[in-house]
Amino acid sequence: KTGPRFPSTYTNYGKRGMTLEEELNESNTYYETNGVAVVHKKPTPIRIVKVDYPKRSAAVIKEAYFSTASTTDYNGVYQGHYLDFDAKETRNKGSFPLKNFHQHQIDHMRACMAQSGICFAIIKFVERQEVFLYRATDLFTFWDEQANGGRKSIPYSEIVAHGIRIPVGLQPPIPYLKAVDQLL
Amino acid sequence: KTGPRFPSTYTNYGKRGMTLEEELNESNTYYETNGVAVVHKKPTPIRIVKVDYPKRSAAVIKEAYFSTASTTDYNGVYQGHYLDFDAKETRNKGSFPLKNFHQHQIDHMRACMAQSGICFAIIKFVERQEVFLYRATDLFTFWDEQANGGRKSIPYSEIVAHGIRIPVGLQPPIPYLKAVDQLL
Ligand SMILES: [Mg+2]
Ligand SMILES: [Mg+2]
Repeated sequence: KTGPRFPSTYTNYGKRGMTLEEELNESNTYYETNGVAVVHKKPTPIRIVKVDYPKRSAAVIKEAYFSTASTTDYNGVYQGHYLDFDAKETRNKGSFPLKNFHQHQIDHMRACMAQSGICFAIIKFVERQEVFLYRATDLFTFWDEQANGGRKSIPYSEIVAHGIRIPVGLQPPIPYLKAVDQLL
Repeated sequence: KTGPRFPSTYTNYGKRGMTLEEELNESNTYYETNGVAVVHKKPTPIRIVKVDYPKRSAAVIKEAYFSTASTTDYNGVYQGHYLDFDAKETRNKGSFPLKNFHQHQIDHMRACMAQSGICFAIIKFVERQEVFLYRATDLFTFWDEQANGGRKSIPYSEIVAHGIRIPVGLQPPIPYLKAVDQLL
Protein backbone atom coordinates (compact mmCIF):
# COMPACT_ATOMS: atom_id res chain seq x y z
CA LYS A 1 0.00 0.00 0.00
CA THR A 2 1.36 3.36 -1.01
CA GLY A 3 1.48 6.15 1.55
CA PRO A 4 0.17 9.67 0.97
CA ARG A 5 2.02 11.97 -1.39
CA PHE A 6 4.59 14.44 -0.16
CA PRO A 7 2.85 17.03 2.07
CA SER A 8 0.96 19.66 0.12
CA THR A 9 3.21 22.29 1.67
CA TYR A 10 5.51 21.63 -1.25
CA THR A 11 3.05 22.57 -3.98
CA ASN A 12 1.94 26.15 -4.33
CA TYR A 13 -1.70 26.92 -4.90
CA GLY A 14 -3.45 30.18 -4.25
CA LYS A 15 -2.94 33.76 -5.26
CA ARG A 16 -0.45 34.63 -2.59
CA GLY A 17 1.59 31.47 -3.13
CA MET A 18 0.44 29.89 0.13
CA THR A 19 -1.24 26.52 0.42
CA LEU A 20 -4.34 26.17 2.55
CA GLU A 21 -2.17 24.37 5.09
CA GLU A 22 0.28 27.26 5.25
CA GLU A 23 -2.56 29.75 5.59
CA LEU A 24 -4.04 27.73 8.44
CA ASN A 25 -0.69 27.36 10.16
CA GLU A 26 -0.23 31.12 9.99
CA SER A 27 -3.78 31.63 11.29
CA ASN A 28 -3.12 29.26 14.18
CA THR A 29 0.10 31.07 15.06
CA TYR A 30 -1.84 34.33 15.05
CA TYR A 31 -4.57 32.85 17.26
CA GLU A 32 -2.09 31.38 19.73
CA THR A 33 0.07 34.51 19.90
CA ASN A 34 -3.02 36.55 20.68
CA GLY A 35 -4.36 34.13 23.28
CA VAL A 36 -7.44 33.27 21.20
CA ALA A 37 -7.03 29.50 20.79
CA VAL A 38 -4.40 26.75 20.74
CA VAL A 39 -4.66 24.70 17.55
CA HIS A 40 -1.85 22.81 15.85
CA LYS A 41 -1.38 20.71 12.78
CA LYS A 42 -0.15 17.26 13.69
CA PRO A 43 3.15 16.23 12.13
CA THR A 44 2.90 13.93 9.11
CA PRO A 45 3.35 10.40 10.43
CA ILE A 46 6.50 8.73 9.18
CA ARG A 47 7.39 5.04 9.34
CA ILE A 48 11.09 4.89 10.11
CA VAL A 49 13.08 1.93 8.81
CA LYS A 50 16.73 2.88 9.16
CA VAL A 51 18.54 5.39 11.38
CA ASP A 52 22.25 6.18 11.58
CA TYR A 53 23.77 7.46 14.82
CA PRO A 54 26.93 9.29 13.83
CA LYS A 55 29.30 10.19 16.67
CA ARG A 56 29.05 13.76 17.93
CA SER A 57 26.15 14.67 15.64
CA ALA A 58 22.41 14.20 15.36
CA ALA A 59 20.80 10.90 14.39
CA VAL A 60 20.09 10.72 10.66
CA ILE A 61 17.06 8.92 9.29
CA LYS A 62 18.27 7.09 6.19
CA GLU A 63 15.13 5.24 5.16
CA ALA A 64 11.56 6.11 6.00
CA TYR A 65 8.13 6.25 4.39
CA PHE A 66 5.10 8.48 4.65
CA SER A 67 2.29 6.69 6.41
CA THR A 68 -1.41 7.39 6.58
CA ALA A 69 -2.62 9.43 9.55
CA SER A 70 -5.23 7.74 11.74
CA THR A 71 -6.78 11.07 12.67
CA THR A 72 -7.55 14.43 11.13
CA ASP A 73 -4.75 16.95 10.66
CA TYR A 74 -5.72 19.66 13.13
CA ASN A 75 -6.94 19.74 16.69
CA GLY A 76 -6.82 22.00 19.67
CA VAL A 77 -8.76 23.94 22.28
CA TYR A 78 -10.83 27.11 21.97
CA GLN A 79 -12.68 28.60 24.94
CA GLY A 80 -13.06 25.20 26.57
CA HIS A 81 -14.14 23.48 23.34
CA TYR A 82 -12.22 20.68 21.70
CA LEU A 83 -11.80 21.43 17.99
CA ASP A 84 -10.97 18.77 15.42
CA PHE A 85 -10.86 19.30 11.69
CA ASP A 86 -9.28 18.57 8.40
CA ALA A 87 -8.42 21.02 5.64
CA LYS A 88 -8.88 20.17 1.99
CA GLU A 89 -8.47 22.08 -1.22
CA THR A 90 -9.86 21.31 -4.65
CA ARG A 91 -9.32 22.86 -8.07
CA ASN A 92 -12.82 21.73 -9.07
CA LYS A 93 -15.33 24.53 -9.38
CA GLY A 94 -18.64 22.66 -9.29
CA SER A 95 -18.17 20.18 -6.47
CA PHE A 96 -15.88 18.83 -3.78
CA PRO A 97 -14.78 15.20 -4.43
CA LEU A 98 -15.34 12.92 -1.44
CA LYS A 99 -12.23 10.93 -2.33
CA ASN A 100 -10.32 13.71 -0.52
CA PHE A 101 -11.52 12.12 2.70
CA HIS A 102 -10.61 8.71 4.07
CA GLN A 103 -12.73 6.36 6.12
CA HIS A 104 -10.43 6.66 9.17
CA GLN A 105 -10.84 10.45 9.17
CA ILE A 106 -14.61 10.11 9.13
CA ASP A 107 -14.47 7.49 11.90
CA HIS A 108 -12.20 9.75 13.94
CA MET A 109 -14.55 12.73 13.61
CA ARG A 110 -17.54 10.59 14.60
CA ALA A 111 -15.67 9.41 17.72
CA CYS A 112 -14.73 12.99 18.64
CA MET A 113 -18.30 14.16 18.19
CA ALA A 114 -19.49 11.39 20.52
CA GLN A 115 -17.22 13.09 23.11
CA SER A 116 -18.82 16.50 22.39
CA GLY A 117 -15.92 17.72 20.28
CA ILE A 118 -16.53 20.32 17.56
CA CYS A 119 -15.72 18.67 14.21
CA PHE A 120 -15.71 20.10 10.71
CA ALA A 121 -13.83 20.40 7.45
CA ILE A 122 -12.29 23.52 6.03
CA ILE A 123 -12.79 23.33 2.28
CA LYS A 124 -11.08 25.65 -0.18
CA PHE A 125 -12.16 26.02 -3.78
CA VAL A 126 -8.80 27.12 -5.10
CA GLU A 127 -9.95 28.42 -8.50
CA ARG A 128 -12.73 30.40 -6.84
CA GLN A 129 -10.53 31.53 -3.94
CA GLU A 130 -13.41 30.67 -1.60
CA VAL A 131 -13.11 28.94 1.77
CA PHE A 132 -15.89 27.31 3.78
CA LEU A 133 -16.34 25.63 7.12
CA TYR A 134 -18.48 22.55 6.48
CA ARG A 135 -19.97 20.70 9.46
CA ALA A 136 -18.88 17.10 10.02
CA THR A 137 -22.55 16.04 10.37
CA ASP A 138 -23.27 17.30 6.83
CA LEU A 139 -20.15 15.60 5.55
CA PHE A 140 -21.28 12.30 7.15
CA THR A 141 -24.59 12.51 5.26
CA PHE A 142 -22.84 12.68 1.89
CA TRP A 143 -20.25 10.10 2.96
CA ASP A 144 -22.90 7.57 3.96
CA GLU A 145 -24.99 8.20 0.83
CA GLN A 146 -21.91 7.61 -1.31
CA ALA A 147 -21.54 4.14 0.26
CA ASN A 148 -25.16 3.47 -0.79
CA GLY A 149 -24.62 4.38 -4.42
CA GLY A 150 -24.98 8.14 -3.93
CA ARG A 151 -22.87 10.81 -5.57
CA LYS A 152 -19.09 10.88 -5.18
CA SER A 153 -18.87 14.59 -4.47
CA ILE A 154 -20.56 17.38 -2.57
CA PRO A 155 -22.02 20.05 -4.88
CA TYR A 156 -20.58 23.53 -4.53
CA SER A 157 -24.15 24.82 -4.19
CA GLU A 158 -24.70 22.55 -1.15
CA ILE A 159 -21.54 23.84 0.50
CA VAL A 160 -22.63 27.43 -0.18
CA ALA A 161 -26.09 26.67 1.24
CA HIS A 162 -25.12 24.75 4.38
CA GLY A 163 -21.48 25.59 4.98
CA ILE A 164 -20.24 28.78 6.60
CA ARG A 165 -18.27 31.04 4.30
CA ILE A 166 -14.94 32.21 5.75
CA PRO A 167 -14.01 35.60 4.30
CA VAL A 168 -10.31 35.37 3.57
CA GLY A 169 -8.28 37.97 5.39
CA LEU A 170 -4.75 39.05 5.98
CA GLN A 171 -4.27 38.58 9.71
CA PRO A 172 -5.25 35.81 10.25
CA PRO A 173 -5.34 34.67 6.60
CA ILE A 174 -8.22 32.22 7.35
CA PRO A 175 -10.28 33.58 10.29
CA TYR A 176 -12.08 30.26 10.73
CA LEU A 177 -12.86 30.78 14.43
CA LYS A 178 -15.50 33.34 13.43
CA ALA A 179 -17.23 30.48 11.62
CA VAL A 180 -16.67 28.15 14.59
CA ASP A 181 -18.45 30.71 16.81
CA GLN A 182 -21.60 29.98 14.80
CA LEU A 183 -21.38 26.29 15.78
CA LEU A 184 -21.16 26.93 19.52
CA LYS B 1 21.35 21.76 17.76
CA THR B 2 20.83 18.08 18.22
CA GLY B 3 17.31 16.70 17.95
CA PRO B 4 15.69 14.39 20.48
CA ARG B 5 16.89 10.83 20.71
CA PHE B 6 15.16 8.02 18.85
CA PRO B 7 11.66 7.61 20.33
CA SER B 8 11.66 5.77 23.61
CA THR B 9 9.48 3.10 22.04
CA TYR B 10 12.74 1.45 21.09
CA THR B 11 14.06 1.01 24.61
CA ASN B 12 12.34 -1.38 26.90
CA TYR B 13 11.59 -0.35 30.45
CA GLY B 14 8.97 -1.83 32.73
CA LYS B 15 8.16 -5.26 33.99
CA ARG B 16 6.06 -6.31 31.05
CA GLY B 17 8.54 -5.00 28.51
CA MET B 18 6.40 -2.01 27.57
CA THR B 19 7.45 1.61 27.69
CA LEU B 20 5.16 4.16 29.28
CA GLU B 21 4.40 5.41 25.79
CA GLU B 22 3.35 1.95 24.64
CA GLU B 23 1.22 1.49 27.74
CA LEU B 24 -0.50 4.81 27.11
CA ASN B 25 -1.05 4.03 23.44
CA GLU B 26 -2.66 0.75 24.41
CA SER B 27 -4.77 2.53 27.03
CA ASN B 28 -5.88 5.09 24.46
CA THR B 29 -6.83 2.36 22.00
CA TYR B 30 -8.85 0.72 24.74
CA TYR B 31 -10.56 4.00 25.62
CA GLU B 32 -11.38 4.79 22.00
CA THR B 33 -12.62 1.29 21.17
CA ASN B 34 -14.94 1.47 24.14
CA GLY B 35 -16.21 4.95 23.36
CA VAL B 36 -14.70 6.44 26.53
CA ALA B 37 -12.41 9.11 25.05
CA VAL B 38 -10.43 9.96 21.93
CA VAL B 39 -6.79 10.64 22.78
CA HIS B 40 -3.81 10.17 20.48
CA LYS B 41 -0.08 10.56 20.64
CA LYS B 42 1.14 13.01 18.04
CA PRO B 43 3.67 11.65 15.58
CA THR B 44 7.29 12.56 16.27
CA PRO B 45 8.05 15.60 14.13
CA ILE B 46 10.62 14.92 11.44
CA ARG B 47 12.52 17.46 9.35
CA ILE B 48 12.75 16.00 5.86
CA VAL B 49 15.76 16.90 3.74
CA LYS B 50 15.74 14.45 0.83
CA VAL B 51 13.02 12.31 -0.73
CA ASP B 52 13.24 9.91 -3.68
CA TYR B 53 10.20 9.26 -5.85
CA PRO B 54 10.80 5.89 -7.48
CA LYS B 55 8.49 4.95 -10.34
CA ARG B 56 5.60 2.68 -9.42
CA SER B 57 6.42 2.62 -5.71
CA ALA B 58 6.08 4.77 -2.62
CA ALA B 59 8.20 7.85 -1.98
CA VAL B 60 11.29 7.04 0.11
CA ILE B 61 12.68 9.51 2.60
CA LYS B 62 16.46 9.30 2.25
CA GLU B 63 17.59 11.98 4.69
CA ALA B 64 15.67 13.35 7.63
CA TYR B 65 16.21 14.43 11.24
CA PHE B 66 14.22 14.26 14.44
CA SER B 67 13.05 17.69 15.45
CA THR B 68 11.72 19.05 18.70
CA ALA B 69 7.96 19.07 19.16
CA SER B 70 6.41 22.47 19.83
CA THR B 71 3.64 20.91 21.92
CA THR B 72 3.10 18.07 24.36
CA ASP B 73 2.84 14.50 23.07
CA TYR B 74 -0.79 13.68 23.80
CA ASN B 75 -4.09 15.44 23.35
CA GLY B 76 -7.70 14.60 22.78
CA VAL B 77 -11.27 14.90 23.99
CA TYR B 78 -13.04 13.30 26.94
CA GLN B 79 -16.68 14.06 27.74
CA GLY B 80 -16.44 17.50 26.23
CA HIS B 81 -13.11 18.31 27.91
CA TYR B 82 -9.92 19.03 26.02
CA LEU B 83 -7.08 16.95 27.49
CA ASP B 84 -3.41 17.78 26.95
CA PHE B 85 -0.51 16.02 28.59
CA ASP B 86 2.97 14.69 28.39
CA ALA B 87 4.24 11.36 29.67
CA LYS B 88 7.64 11.03 31.28
CA GLU B 89 9.48 8.19 32.94
CA THR B 90 12.44 8.33 35.28
CA ARG B 91 14.68 5.66 36.77
CA ASN B 92 15.30 7.95 39.75
CA LYS B 93 13.61 6.87 42.96
CA GLY B 94 13.74 10.01 45.06
CA SER B 95 12.72 12.73 42.63
CA PHE B 96 11.63 13.58 39.13
CA PRO B 97 14.21 15.70 37.24
CA LEU B 98 12.72 18.83 35.68
CA LYS B 99 15.12 18.57 32.74
CA ASN B 100 12.66 16.02 31.33
CA PHE B 101 10.48 18.99 30.45
CA HIS B 102 11.20 21.72 27.93
CA GLN B 103 10.17 25.36 28.05
CA HIS B 104 7.96 25.03 24.94
CA GLN B 105 6.00 22.19 26.59
CA ILE B 106 5.39 24.33 29.66
CA ASP B 107 4.38 27.30 27.48
CA HIS B 108 2.04 25.07 25.49
CA MET B 109 0.33 23.75 28.64
CA ARG B 110 -0.10 27.28 29.98
CA ALA B 111 -1.70 28.36 26.70
CA CYS B 112 -4.07 25.36 26.76
CA MET B 113 -5.04 26.04 30.36
CA ALA B 114 -5.88 29.63 29.42
CA GLN B 115 -8.42 28.05 27.00
CA SER B 116 -9.84 25.89 29.82
CA GLY B 117 -8.05 22.74 28.71
CA ILE B 118 -7.17 20.02 31.26
CA CYS B 119 -3.37 19.81 31.40
CA PHE B 120 -1.13 17.46 33.33
CA ALA B 121 1.87 15.17 33.24
CA ILE B 122 1.84 11.42 33.61
CA ILE B 123 4.98 10.54 35.53
CA LYS B 124 6.25 7.01 35.90
CA PHE B 125 8.87 6.01 38.46
CA VAL B 126 10.17 3.00 36.56
CA GLU B 127 12.11 1.39 39.41
CA ARG B 128 9.14 1.75 41.73
CA GLN B 129 6.61 0.75 39.04
CA GLU B 130 4.46 3.66 40.18
CA VAL B 131 2.55 6.04 37.93
CA PHE B 132 1.06 9.42 38.86
CA LEU B 133 -1.01 12.12 37.27
CA TYR B 134 0.60 15.42 38.28
CA ARG B 135 -1.32 18.65 37.65
CA ALA B 136 0.24 21.19 35.28
CA THR B 137 -0.33 23.97 37.83
CA ASP B 138 1.86 22.12 40.36
CA LEU B 139 4.47 21.49 37.68
CA PHE B 140 4.51 25.21 36.84
CA THR B 141 5.27 26.05 40.47
CA PHE B 142 8.42 23.90 40.47
CA TRP B 143 9.34 25.03 36.96
CA ASP B 144 9.18 28.71 37.91
CA GLU B 145 11.04 28.18 41.18
CA GLN B 146 13.82 26.38 39.30
CA ALA B 147 14.28 29.48 37.14
CA ASN B 148 14.71 31.47 40.37
CA GLY B 149 17.43 29.24 41.76
CA GLY B 150 15.09 26.59 43.15
CA ARG B 151 15.60 22.83 43.00
CA LYS B 152 16.07 21.05 39.69
CA SER B 153 13.67 18.22 40.47
CA ILE B 154 10.30 17.48 42.06
CA PRO B 155 10.63 15.30 45.18
CA TYR B 156 8.91 11.92 45.02
CA SER B 157 7.20 12.79 48.30
CA GLU B 158 5.66 15.92 46.73
CA ILE B 159 4.32 13.88 43.81
CA VAL B 160 2.85 11.32 46.24
CA ALA B 161 1.31 14.13 48.31
CA HIS B 162 -0.18 16.26 45.52
CA GLY B 163 -0.30 13.97 42.49
CA ILE B 164 -2.98 11.37 41.86
CA ARG B 165 -1.75 7.81 41.93
CA ILE B 166 -2.82 5.71 38.93
CA PRO B 167 -3.07 2.05 39.93
CA VAL B 168 -1.54 0.15 37.02
CA GLY B 169 -3.93 -2.32 35.46
CA LEU B 170 -4.18 -4.74 32.60
CA GLN B 171 -6.98 -3.31 30.49
CA PRO B 172 -6.27 -0.43 30.14
CA PRO B 173 -2.65 -0.72 31.35
CA ILE B 174 -2.71 2.92 32.62
CA PRO B 175 -6.29 3.87 33.60
CA TYR B 176 -5.41 7.56 33.77
CA LEU B 177 -8.94 8.80 33.05
CA LYS B 178 -9.94 7.72 36.56
CA ALA B 179 -7.39 10.23 37.81
CA VAL B 180 -8.60 12.83 35.31
CA ASP B 181 -12.11 12.43 36.74
CA GLN B 182 -10.76 13.90 39.98
CA LEU B 183 -9.70 17.06 38.12
CA LEU B 184 -13.12 17.73 36.57
MG1 LIG C 1 -5.28 17.18 5.17
MG1 LIG D 1 7.19 12.68 25.91
